[in-house]
Parts: sequence; structure tokens; C-alpha cells
Amino acid sequence: MPELRKDPIVGRWIIISTERAKRPTDFVAKPEAKRGGFCPFCPGNEDKTPPEIMAYRDNGTQPNTTGWRMRVVSNKFPALMTEGDLNRAGDGIYDKMGGIGAHEVIIETPDHELTLSTMPLSGVINVLYAYKERLIDLKRDQRLRYVMIFKNHGEAAGASLEHPHSQLIALPIVPKRVREELFGSKNYFEYKERCLFCDIIRQEIEREIRMIEETDYFIAISPFAPRFPFETWIMPKIHKAAFENLSDNELSSLAVILQNTLKRIDKILNFPAYNFVIHSAPFHDSQSESYHYHIEIMPKLTKVAGFEWGTGFYINPMPPELAAKYLREEGLVAETQPLAI
Amino acid sequence: MPELRKDPIVGRWIIISTERAKRPTDFVAKPEAKRGGFCPFCPGNEDKTPPEIMAYRDNGTQPNTTGWRMRVVSNKFPALMTEGDLNRAGDGIYDKMGGIGAHEVIIETPDHELTLSTMPLSGVINVLYAYKERLIDLKRDQRLRYVMIFKNHGEAAGASLEHPHSQLIALPIVPKRVREELFGSKNYFEYKERCLFCDIIRQEIEREIRMIEETDYFIAISPFAPRFPFETWIMPKIHKAAFENLSDNELSSLAVILQNTLKRIDKILNFPAYNFVIHSAPFHDSQSESYHYHIEIMPKLTKVAGFEWGTGFYINPMPPELAAKYLREEGLVAETQPLAI
Repeated sequence: MPELRKDPIVGRWIIISTERAKRPTDFVAKPEAKRGGFCPFCPGNEDKTPPEIMAYRDNGTQPNTTGWRMRVVSNKFPALMTEGDLNRAGDGIYDKMGGIGAHEVIIETPDHELTLSTMPLSGVINVLYAYKERLIDLKRDQRLRYVMIFKNHGEAAGASLEHPHSQLIALPIVPKRVREELFGSKNYFEYKERCLFCDIIRQEIEREIRMIEETDYFIAISPFAPRFPFETWIMPKIHKAAFENLSDNELSSLAVILQNTLKRIDKILNFPAYNFVIHSAPFHDSQSESYHYHIEIMPKLTKVAGFEWGTGFYINPMPPELAAKYLREEGLVAETQPLAI
Repeated sequence: MPELRKDPIVGRWIIISTERAKRPTDFVAKPEAKRGGFCPFCPGNEDKTPPEIMAYRDNGTQPNTTGWRMRVVSNKFPALMTEGDLNRAGDGIYDKMGGIGAHEVIIETPDHELTLSTMPLSGVINVLYAYKERLIDLKRDQRLRYVMIFKNHGEAAGASLEHPHSQLIALPIVPKRVREELFGSKNYFEYKERCLFCDIIRQEIEREIRMIEETDYFIAISPFAPRFPFETWIMPKIHKAAFENLSDNELSSLAVILQNTLKRIDKILNFPAYNFVIHSAPFHDSQSESYHYHIEIMPKLTKVAGFEWGTGFYINPMPPELAAKYLREEGLVAETQPLAI
């Protein structure tokens, strides 16, 4: 059974996962695993994953067989368990609880060779719809407080399988980073009676200097104080706290700007590894006036990792105004831009 | 001129550094730079670094020539500048200030092939003394509030030069992570009238299960809620808030347990890359009753990076009780243990 543990100094919860091997040799760096071999996410291998939780399928096809266009399964090595009790408990000065939650994999497409930036736009829309459907379903579980949806693309970003996929982790706690965002934006709202994120969006649209792309519903920007070179945020112009509240129009529009942004990053940085994370309100706060969902994309550029990872302090050699200029002006190949939605 | 910028949502300061190149191609992953070539930190190349700030030298040798045993120089590509004004200013809803501070390199030994775990104990003591001396010197600059001392060992941990060295960054602000520690431990102190870190140390000594080594002045433990496999903290048993307040005896004792701990990590994990960070009180709080300096060591095990970096949320597959058992029982080669101080 995995365990959630709280650092008593800064209040950060972490998961001690027990479903993976733990001899020291398991952690010793090995040569990169050979790619191109067996892939458990490819069509025909549906029995090599845990049973599917949901899928978008061709008419008449059966669960856990071929014929799917998008498929969600439990992670085979889950960081958290669905069954069990929370059992919040102290241990002297420490706090812990059972590792209850969910850890799922969104297999984005049957095509092993595609990515979110190269698949048809309809594929990206499928993926975003799946995120929303999973959020709505998991929200019914009273034990859960937060769902973190993220993607590790490329081995340097933590992906252990090449086949395009994203992940979600449903948690009985709200992660520290999200609590900090909630706290900061709530303080701002109480003082100004305006949403901080809406103010950021207004200022960025007006100043233009960090703007990468603006569409009907969204902007893509280099944030004012980015941790990493070419860090990019996608923010909705219409205030909404939680991702699960997106309308169909908004989801389709988000798919366009997300794919465009990933295309820009691929072009400027030569197909880098990256992480993206959907920052959405906790379940109990999904109508918040002060919180505002958004997506943070962080290209994983190996030359700048390490120090930041160790210290929690960030030195970024790329001014966001310059990053935005590259991504805006040279980032998009015009003929592949999927504008029609 | 570099710039310090504050994220308006979570209040995190970051540095936009301007002293390094910034075309996108500079960030594109390249094959590993060939090692074994010219080293600017090796004896004989003293003119290839900025002038030395301090050094421990053989009698009669001149600054910026050979004959040194430990040498501190400015970073050739500093993230912050010594000269200039802070110029705190707003920019609409954003906050920024001039990138004033210092960025120094502690060249730990003239011997390119040694590491903190293989050098003579006297070399480790020299390094820790140098940290203390630099802290005391930088404290005189009224513009500075915090000095972060850290080491990136190995390319995967962010080291760009192989020659053994650590770094310090002196800042006009207190980094967010340190502020969080100060805040958490102050709250605890106000409620309990005891230092949280002292309580952690008492509990860890009593429970033994996460203990790696205990000496006269220090303990090395796997913390209760570690972010990373084999994360290890070295904590002083005598309450002290700031590293610069260490006595000679404490520095020598710290050198022993630090070297032992790095030897254990090298043995168990086959000489991994790692980061360590000295967590010490800000200058204005160096006599704090509630803060307690310590060292956090994080082996950089490539299989577990990525996700954490992108989300700020940590999943650790190695229970600290098991990590401590490995490091404690199998970690130290007896005959190389430097016990005499």
C-alpha cells in the first residue's frame, strides 16, 4: 500500500510509492532502453494493459480490443491505489495517510508515431475531452480532492514509454503548488476584487511583448517570471476555475492553441522533451472567482536542469520577451496550422 | 544586467540571467561535451578564471598563481552582478529588481580527479571553512539577504565542469523555499516553544529507523517525507540557525559526516550525480530560535526526474526507511572511514 507523507517543515505532501522495485541497483543509471521493441499501448496489445476505464471507439468494437481512437487505462504501476481507507494518522511529529487515489494513463492515439503536435486536430480534441470526462467521473469519489493531469513527453521529461500518452493522478490532498496558487490568487482577489489571472491576461494582451498567440478563447504567452527557457502558459480569456467546466467550443479552441504551441516549440527547439501540467481548481473550489485554470508547458532542455531541481531556486538564461518573439515569429509552419474548428 | 522577477501568483523570485547566450540553438540538446580536455580550474590556469576572491595557499605563493589548496573565484558567467542598484520597481501588476548579488565558485582542490568523497578529510574541512568565510564576508554587504551554497556534482546534476567545485549565490531576496521553511518552523515554535528541527532530530535518534549515521555533533538521516530516492539530510544536534556560526570543532565534525555520507552514496549508487544545498538562516535571522541549518543531499537518479520537475509534486518509489538501511549497513567501506579529527 503506498503512503502519503507530509514534510513537517514546509507542509509538502509526497507519495511513497510501493509498486515499483526498490533495490539500489534499480536506480543506478543504465544505458537508454532500446526503443522500437514491443509497445503495450499499440493496437492489438490491449490485453497487456489493465482493463480500459473508457475509450472512444469505432461503432461495434468491444472494450479491450482494437478499434479505439483514444483509450484510458489504469497505470500498470500505480503511484496510488483505488481501494482502501485514508487512515489519516500521526507518527510522532509526522503526518501520513494511506495512498488512496487513482493513477491513469490516457493513450492519446493508436498511432505510435504521432505526437500531440503532429496528430490530426480531432485527435487532440479527443484527448482534451477525455481529460474532462475523467475529471467529472473522479469528482464523484468523495475521498478525492484534486486531479493532476500532466504529460511527460520524451525520455528526458520522464516518459518511460514512447507511445503518445498523458497521465492523471487523483489525490486525497491538494498539492502544495496548487495550494500556493489558490492562496496567492485569493489574497489578490480579496484586495482588488478582481481575478489575478484575468489581470495578467489583460496586461499581456495590452503589452503584446510576451504574447505568442491569441485566439478567440485563449492566449499563449511566455510568463513574466518563467522558471525555464521557453516555458509557455496557455490561459483562457474567459474566467473559469476548473477544467471540467469547459464547453465544447472552448475544448476545441484549446486543442487548436495547444497544438499550435507544441508545433512552435517543436520547430524552435527541434522536438524537445517537455512536460505540461493542467492547473485546475480543486474539486471543492470549481466555481472559484479567484482561481483560473491554465496549462503550463515546460520544455526539458538538458543544459539547464540540475541546480533548479536541487535548490528550488530558478535561474533562467532566456528572457521571456525573447522566447516569445522566437515562438511567435518563427515558430509556426503556416501550412500545417489547423485553423478550422 | 540580470533581473530578478517575482511570479505574481505564488510569489517566487527567479533570475533572468543575461550573461549567457540565448539563441534557441543554445538550448537544443547536444551530444555530451568531451571531457578530459582543457580545465580552467586546474593549477597553472589561474589566469583563465576571474581573479581569486580568497584562497588557502602554501606560504609564499602569490594570488592567481599555483600553490593553492582551495580557491574561490567569481563565476565567469555570473547569474547576478556585484555592481549596480537594486531599483525595486513595478511593471503593471508585476514586480522586479536589478540582479544584484554575487555568484562565486569554490574550487575545492587543485586535483582534478578527486571528489569530496575521495579527497583527504583536510580538503573537505578547507571547503567548509571557505563556505563560512565567504558567508561572513558577504554578510557585510547591506544589499544582500541570503547566500545559497550548493554543489552540482556530475553533468546530470547540472555541473558544466568536471573539476570538483561548489558554488554560492548571494541574493538581495530570501528564496521562496527558505521562506517556507522559516514560516513553517516559526509557526511550530510559536505553538510548541520548541525548535521543529530539534524535535525531528530527537525523534529520529529515538526511532533509529531512518538513521544513517550519528556522530558527536551531527546526524545523517533519510528524511520522513523525501522527494527523491536516497535523499539524505545532515542535521546538527546542537541548535544553530546559521552556517556561519559554526565553531571549528563543528566544522571538522561536519566534514567527517559529510564525507562519510557521500562515500555511502557513492558505494550504494555507483558514484551518482548529485546536488547538495546548505539550508541556512537569512542574514537578518542568524540567531533564530526556530530555524536550524542543515544540508540536503539529493542524488540525481535519471530514472525518476521529469514528472517532479514539471509538476512540483513528488512520487518517491524508495521508502526512506529502506534507503537508510542500505546507506547505514552497506554504505561505508570501513577502512576508508576518516574518524580522527
